[in-house]
Parts: sequence; structure tokens; C-alpha cells
Amino acid sequence: MYSIAEFQNLFSDSLLESRIKSKPQNLYEPIHYILSLGGKRLRPTLVLAACNLFSDNTKQAVDTAIAYEIFHNFTLLHDDVMDNSPKRRGKPTVHRKWNINTAILSGDAMMILAQTLIQNTPENVRPQVVEIFNTTALEVCEGQQLDMDFEIENSISDAQYTEMIRLKTSVLLAACLKSGALIGGGDTKSADLLYNFGLNLGLAFQLQDDYLDVYGNSEIFGKRIGGDIIADKKTFLLIKAFEFAQGDMRKTLDETIGNKSINEVDKIKTITQIYNSLKIDEMCLNRIDEFYRKALNYLHNLQINPERIKILEQFSKEIMQRNK
Amino acid sequence: MYSIAEFQNLFSDSLLESRIKSKPQNLYEPIHYILSLGGKRLRPTLVLAACNLFSDNTKQAVDTAIAYEIFHNFTLLHDDVMDNSPKRRGKPTVHRKWNINTAILSGDAMMILAQTLIQNTPENVRPQVVEIFNTTALEVCEGQQLDMDFEIENSISDAQYTEMIRLKTSVLLAACLKSGALIGGGDTKSADLLYNFGLNLGLAFQLQDDYLDVYGNSEIFGKRIGGDIIADKKTFLLIKAFEFAQGDMRKTLDETIGNKSINEVDKIKTITQIYNSLKIDEMCLNRIDEFYRKALNYLHNLQINPERIKILEQFSKEIMQRNK
Repeated sequence: MYSIAEFQNLFSDSLLESRIKSKPQNLYEPIHYILSLGGKRLRPTLVLAACNLFSDNTKQAVDTAIAYEIFHNFTLLHDDVMDNSPKRRGKPTVHRKWNINTAILSGDAMMILAQTLIQNTPENVRPQVVEIFNTTALEVCEGQQLDMDFEIENSISDAQYTEMIRLKTSVLLAACLKSGALIGGGDTKSADLLYNFGLNLGLAFQLQDDYLDVYGNSEIFGKRIGGDIIADKKTFLLIKAFEFAQGDMRKTLDETIGNKSINEVDKIKTITQIYNSLKIDEMCLNRIDEFYRKALNYLHNLQINPERIKILEQFSKEIMQRNK
Repeated sequence: MYSIAEFQNLFSDSLLESRIKSKPQNLYEPIHYILSLGGKRLRPTLVLAACNLFSDNTKQAVDTAIAYEIFHNFTLLHDDVMDNSPKRRGKPTVHRKWNINTAILSGDAMMILAQTLIQNTPENVRPQVVEIFNTTALEVCEGQQLDMDFEIENSISDAQYTEMIRLKTSVLLAACLKSGALIGGGDTKSADLLYNFGLNLGLAFQLQDDYLDVYGNSEIFGKRIGGDIIADKKTFLLIKAFEFAQGDMRKTLDETIGNKSINEVDKIKTITQIYNSLKIDEMCLNRIDEFYRKALNYLHNLQINPERIKILEQFSKEIMQRNK
């Protein structure tokens, strides 16, 4: 039985790089680059941790875990092009360091590399894991499409937003857990419980991201406070504000959002005041708590040694307490 | 036993569309669009024809054939973005009709759809076919990278050029044939012979494309004559011209290629005269013939009913005689 930290340490740059060729250099160098930027290695860690719930042989899940990490980084690479983001983990994005064509093509190659590695899943569960992987990969594309659609759409409901973040973020975490469980020898029921644990944890995590953008401590959060407000990003908070604001407050909201001529500090202050007046911070915390409890409930329904469950419980706690 | 035309007719828009969802609309509409633009459906035809060499049950190869066609169209979609091409088969490209982000994301989804469909390959040969598919897909990316690298590189050798077109074009045709053969029950030796037949036919076909750009009849060829010369494209002809031109001819070549201020008609005339003087047209025809004969040689080594071989032979003849 291993700790989460041990799994995270397993995902060294050298392990990832060992799976990737070096020539033609202009194709593979950007792949080595984005993978070397680090990150929490959350997805491969979940694959291995889920496998370890049922088996001590976690080595058999390593290539599947790498496949998910490479797939995730492929989506980051292409998303950065689509969002025209200048930075990723504090370093220049691939399309800025090289160019857009390189980012497109190296991303395509990463997707194929991920597909190649997922085929190294142990034979007895390979068809199921490959199906989960492909279904999930397509859902992530659908989520990214909805995210882009919502940017230019005016009235997004709470339910539509939840569906978007489910597809864009949560299904991948869920798929990692389910795949790991199946590789470890978990039965379908256990694998599905872990899928739903991941799905709800992912939703809680994404909503927390929305919350911390306004109410977080920028030093711990690692991002600038109010960034979503300045970008007019349709977060859970803003969607709820449009749902509940009336009269003058609604007028202020309409005049402030989408208005590029307002001073940034004033804009953050105005919108935050609206959130406070409508108690949207509480609504958001309640919703996060709801998803988090639901996640833990699925986890506790697993019929396995409670000691093993504790590791995932502790991990959930850690990623949900990053700024509280 | 079916004819090539029957296989080509099989690939109706409705068959392809039956495998693709419709929502979110902004993700799937561009996919339906590019697949509806038609084309020769060369790749799925090769899968089915190769399967039919060994088995009358070609239905079992249909999803594999569709996977290859969708993968091919995915590469066209992303290549058009990278080349900033305005048209594809006479219609606006996806990134022009929609935008670059749509083209990137819909392309990504196509790649995943292709991966999903390749998993429907009959179980007994699925691992081999999936491996051929992924190896080939990565090679196609490598070929596209080399093609982009060569645009800004000055001295490309004949051998480097052949390697680029092998990766960018030929391996996919070869993989279609090998996959179809394995599905039909062909042994490894036969499947490899068909792979090499496809590889050499693809090289002959690509070199013929270079030749026809200068020496073709624009009405039959379907493209403007001299397009590659105007674009300073490093074709087999131009690479050979740089290899053999000396003295004043070399000087003229150096001054003409890359020079955007020369009148297009004059530029085509000057370069064509150099090709004629150096007999590069003959060199090119000889090389095409070499690859074509090599291709047929592999085909004739197959230990199967000659009647069945004739269909692929006839097909090779047809695609090589489009303008002679």
C-alpha cells in the first residue's frame, strides 16, 4: 500500500520522457517541453491509487496512467492555442515558444502517443479501459466546445454550466479512477463507485476554483484574485448573480459585465459586492459541499479494507483544502 | 468478389455520417461538413479491396475502413489550418467557414472517433490492426513535420524528400491494405506484401503529383499548372534541379526561386525550361516507373487467385493514368 505522495513522485519527468521519441526534433521537443512543466500529476496518481485499492501490483497500471497524463497535457496544449494563453505553469506556452502549427501538430502526436500507451493496459481489461478512455476523450472535446459556445451565449443556466464542467474536467478524473480499479482487479460495481466519486470530486474541485478566484488568498491560490471577473468569465458565481440580481443590482450587473472601459479594481469590487449581497458565496460553498459529500459517499460504499480507502479520503481532503 | 467502383460507392455520405453524433452542433457539424466534401475514398476502398482478396465477408472490415477515412480527413482538416489553405475540394476549408478553434477541436474529435471505430476491428486481429493504425498515425504526423521543416531548409536531398512523402502519404495507403488483408484472414507474409505494394504505389502517386503540376493537363489534373513552382514548393523536380543545375542555369534558378517579384507566367516558364534542359521530366518519369513496377512486383508475389489480384492491378493502373 502506497501513499499518494509516493505515487506522485513516481511520475518523474524521466519516466514520462522514456516513452517519447526525440526525432523529428521539431515534433517531439515541444512534447518533452510541456511534460517537463510538471503539475500535480493528479490523473496518473488517481489511476495508480485506484489500482492499489485492489492490488499491490501497481506497476501493471503505469502505462495506462502515463496515457492519461499525456492525454491531459494534449488537451492543455490545444486549449492554450484556442484560448491564446501566453503562459502555462509560469512558462511560455508551446504556441508562444514555437508557433501555432507546432502546437497543433505536436498536440496531435501526443494524442496518438496516449492511444498507443493505453493499448499497454493489461489484456484482461484492455477493451473496457480503451472504451472508457475513448468515450472520455470525446466528452472532454465536447466540454471544451460547450465552454467556447458559452463565451458568446448570454443566458447559461446553472445546470448547463454543471454539464460543461462535468465534461471538460470531471469525467477524466472519474475515468482515471475507474480504469485503475479495473486494472487492479476491482469488480464493475466498485469501479463505478470510484467513477462517481471522481465525477463529484471533480465538480467540487472546479466550483472551488470559481470560488477561490474571488474569495481566495492569491498567494496560496497561485492565481491573481478577480481574474475571472475581469475576463467576464461565466463562472458558477456569475451565472447565479444573473439568476438572482434584480432592479438596480441587475442594471449594475448588466452595465459592468462585458464593459472593457471600467477600471479593473472597480470592476472586481462592484461584482464582488453583488455576490456578497446576494449571498452567492454561500450558495457556492453549499454546492461545493454537496458535491464533496456525494463524492465521499460513493467512496465509503466501497466494500474494501477501510485503511486503503483512507488514502483517497485524505487526498480528497488535501485538494479541497488548498485555501480554507 | 467486388469491383473497386462498388467499394467506392459503398462509402456514401450516409454511411460515414451514421457513425457520427450531431451534438454539440458546433463540434460535430464541421465533421459532417468535411466528410461530405467527398473525395475518392481511396483509403477505405483499399481496406475493403485487400480484405476481399482473402474473404467475401467485407462487411467485417467496414468500421476499420471508416476509421481510416476519418483519420485521413482529420489530417486534411489540421493540415489546411497549418497551410492556411482557403479551399478543400473546391469548397471553403473548415477554418475559413468556421474558425481556427473550431478546426482544431473538431479535428481532435475526429481523431478520437477514428480511434473508437478502429476498436471495432474483428477481435482476432484487433491488436495487430490497432498497432498498425497508431504507428502509421504517428508516422503521418512525423511526415507533416518534415514537410514543414523542409519549407525553411535550403538543401533537401532526393532521399530526404522520398522519406518525407513516404511518411506523409504512403504509409497510410500501405496500412489500409495491410489492415484489410489481416481482417480478411490473409497471413502475415501476404499482409506485408500488400503493405509494400501500397508503400511503393503511394510514392509513385505522390511523384506523379509533382510531375503533373508542371507537365499535366490542367483540366484533367484538376489543379492549376505551375502551382508548385509559384509557391516555391520543394518537389522532386525542384530538388533535382538544384542538384544538377550549374553555372548560369544555377544562377537563374537561385534568382528565380523564392523571388516574389517575378511575374508568375515568366516564373513558370523559366523553371520549366530549366527542368526541360536538365531532362528532369524524364528523371521523374523514370522514378515513378521504378516505384510503380516495384509496387506491382509485390502484388504479383501474392499466393492467391490471380483474378482477385487483377482488381488491385486495374485500380493501380487507373490512378496512375489520370493524365497520360
